[in-house]
Amino acid sequence: MQPIDLFIESRWALPMDDAPVLEHAAIAIDAGRIVELGAASALAARYAPRERLMRPHHALLPGLVNAHTHAAMSLMRHLPVRGPLMQWLNETIWPLERRCVNAQFVRSGTQLAMAEMLAAGITCFADMYFFPEEVARLARARHLRVVVGAPIVDARTPWAADADEHLDKAARLWDEYRGDPLILPCFAPHSPYAVGRETFVRLRRLVDQLDAPLAMHLHETQTEVQDSLAAHGARPLAWLADEGLLRPGFSAVHMNWLTDDDIDLAMRTGISVVHCPQSNQRLGSGICPVGDLRAAGVNVALGTDGAASVGALDLLAEARSACLLASLATHNPQALGAIDALRMATLGGAQALGLAHEIGSLMPGKAADLVCIDLSAPACLPVDEPSDTVVFAAGRDAVTDVWVGGRAMVRDRRLLAFDPAEIAAIALEAPARAAVGAAA
Amino acid sequence: MQPIDLFIESRWALPMDDAPVLEHAAIAIDAGRIVELGAASALAARYAPRERLMRPHHALLPGLVNAHTHAAMSLMRHLPVRGPLMQWLNETIWPLERRCVNAQFVRSGTQLAMAEMLAAGITCFADMYFFPEEVARLARARHLRVVVGAPIVDARTPWAADADEHLDKAARLWDEYRGDPLILPCFAPHSPYAVGRETFVRLRRLVDQLDAPLAMHLHETQTEVQDSLAAHGARPLAWLADEGLLRPGFSAVHMNWLTDDDIDLAMRTGISVVHCPQSNQRLGSGICPVGDLRAAGVNVALGTDGAASVGALDLLAEARSACLLASLATHNPQALGAIDALRMATLGGAQALGLAHEIGSLMPGKAADLVCIDLSAPACLPVDEPSDTVVFAAGRDAVTDVWVGGRAMVRDRRLLAFDPAEIAAIALEAPARAAVGAAA
Repeated sequence: MQPIDLFIESRWALPMDDAPVLEHAAIAIDAGRIVELGAASALAARYAPRERLMRPHHALLPGLVNAHTHAAMSLMRHLPVRGPLMQWLNETIWPLERRCVNAQFVRSGTQLAMAEMLAAGITCFADMYFFPEEVARLARARHLRVVVGAPIVDARTPWAADADEHLDKAARLWDEYRGDPLILPCFAPHSPYAVGRETFVRLRRLVDQLDAPLAMHLHETQTEVQDSLAAHGARPLAWLADEGLLRPGFSAVHMNWLTDDDIDLAMRTGISVVHCPQSNQRLGSGICPVGDLRAAGVNVALGTDGAASVGALDLLAEARSACLLASLATHNPQALGAIDALRMATLGGAQALGLAHEIGSLMPGKAADLVCIDLSAPACLPVDEPSDTVVFAAGRDAVTDVWVGGRAMVRDRRLLAFDPAEIAAIALEAPARAAVGAAA
Repeated sequence: MQPIDLFIESRWALPMDDAPVLEHAAIAIDAGRIVELGAASALAARYAPRERLMRPHHALLPGLVNAHTHAAMSLMRHLPVRGPLMQWLNETIWPLERRCVNAQFVRSGTQLAMAEMLAAGITCFADMYFFPEEVARLARARHLRVVVGAPIVDARTPWAADADEHLDKAARLWDEYRGDPLILPCFAPHSPYAVGRETFVRLRRLVDQLDAPLAMHLHETQTEVQDSLAAHGARPLAWLADEGLLRPGFSAVHMNWLTDDDIDLAMRTGISVVHCPQSNQRLGSGICPVGDLRAAGVNVALGTDGAASVGALDLLAEARSACLLASLATHNPQALGAIDALRMATLGGAQALGLAHEIGSLMPGKAADLVCIDLSAPACLPVDEPSDTVVFAAGRDAVTDVWVGGRAMVRDRRLLAFDPAEIAAIALEAPARAAVGAAA
């Protein structure tokens, strides 16, 4: 009998790689990693766990990967969304950020977001916001897995005075955290309209040299594409390709307005697309052609975007929205199946973020980032394909247990990583509230 | 001090009629009815309640009204949706119904749906399914408010042999339950494609005489409209207008494909529209132009449709989807505000069902159909407009307490009206499971 840390039996296990769904499954965990996944009856005879958990009505999945968010913007959750996108950014978000955002704001908002995401089964998120060093510090302290996107823009922001300082600070973040077991720094130029060619040239040199990942808002609105055509004589994606920025490890976020040539370019350059269905609906931006991208062989991940646009950091709800939206856009209910949406929410995210060797599926050797989802509530019955039930019937309230690298973050629906009262106090604390309220 | 049954204090109360949101509110309940709504400080001095409840972080709303569902189809929740609509009906649903649906199936599936809906804050639902007498009996036994739609179709169904028998049984249901405090029978011709002119003529005579409400699937797909033009030389709505069926008390369900003339006709005839956003997406049917309908003065309600198409009977999720879809369709994030979606989910539903004198708002004299929603979780903070938080941040898991006619159905997130183990047993019971499984 092999001694291990943890043995979890579950009614179903959804490995999310090419392996089929297992019934009456078990997973053996040791030293924060998956040792084996298989039939409970077979595994039980081989392991002597220090802890054994029975989850008899549950689906076990790899932890959800939120491939795009702005965590600290959870402190702006209560602001009205007066849009569309550019109006909302120009009139609400950017003025407010100039006035209110500082390191303390980012610490507060990010903790609020982390608590929400963990409770919803999200074990890894790709962030893009000012003061990314604060996000990295919190992630290390709370044992969350985070891809910390250092924002790059040309203009002055609360974090840096100009493109120079953004690039310098981003490079420093890279130096401090590269090789960290939980934190992966990333270069996050905001968008083709917030970063000019000169900065892209320097950025390209930097990421070529460091072999660092990139994330960027792209083809979010029709206006963005038209403006790029007017300014550069090329669509944003083609322009970035000319600048040599597209590559595996580049996350193109949104991608609502795509031609066949765009999709072909995405495929040939090996970039990933991050689909944020609810944010794109809320802001009236458009619909990402997920089915076409996947059919062309482009990896597609799923993101919530920030709470300021979307309200909730709920990746299971986004998975459902992705299926519904794909069906609406194509008049084909099977355009995106539940299992495909869950793959986008797990392995697809891991691939987009360059973490597929470490997370995203229940493969032995990968980190034990796990989530258990209880499918026994009346709202979930009857169950046939557990992936259908998880996406279309269950919600984040069915998440009962969450582990990151083998460490329990949620147990029996109780959030262990944060004290809810502390989080409530953070969200209500005078400075942040007053500052944000004043701008509303 | 006036003795009353129940006094609830809540952080916010959303009356859902024209009255503004109240902060630090209280509601006085006696004999199953609302006595007074107002500031907690003022009301506390006037009433001597037998029971006092503090809900200090909660929004108090009228119970949610699910204006269209097929409750028993919850037993088909696990079936794959291979669509679009007509393919799914012809290949999956109708053959299965012919084989499996009987009174026992409807009792089982309806209880499963009732448990799910109550836990999600739904206190009244408009049903449309075979064996409506079983639904009525269950509603009476469990103290739920239901508009029981007796299905009318020309063909043989599990419930009746032909149009004659459908009409007869519907009329008998009317006779048995009219005037019931909780149950309102309704005539529910399935659709313009499942009912012919002769039956409509007889139905019209019947509902004219009884002054009974009507509900019908209408303008759900583009194909339905085209087929009607080919068969009758008129769009479905215009054809029904010619047949004299459109009137206040007529719920037109779906209404995705509408011209300006259709909307004008809806307005002039005083019908209500029931929007089922997720079902229409899932089946690839289309988008109901909610903003245009409301701008024209048409009452719009919100429905989940059945679990077979939509997966979850979750009206709060539908409210969010309605807002997202309206924004997507119009590129205007404010096309449908959260408060408007909640109004559709409460008073709009009550109006559509002819129950606005009894439910749908927190008006004194109305039945105490109430729901409390806890907005203190990290996922909900910060709160500014509670309606925004309820729709965009909270979910059905935030529902803590539910009353129907003053009777507690959910208390502190615990379902009192049903035993979850009993419901699980119902959903898993051999006959229904086997029958449905065999058809999958």
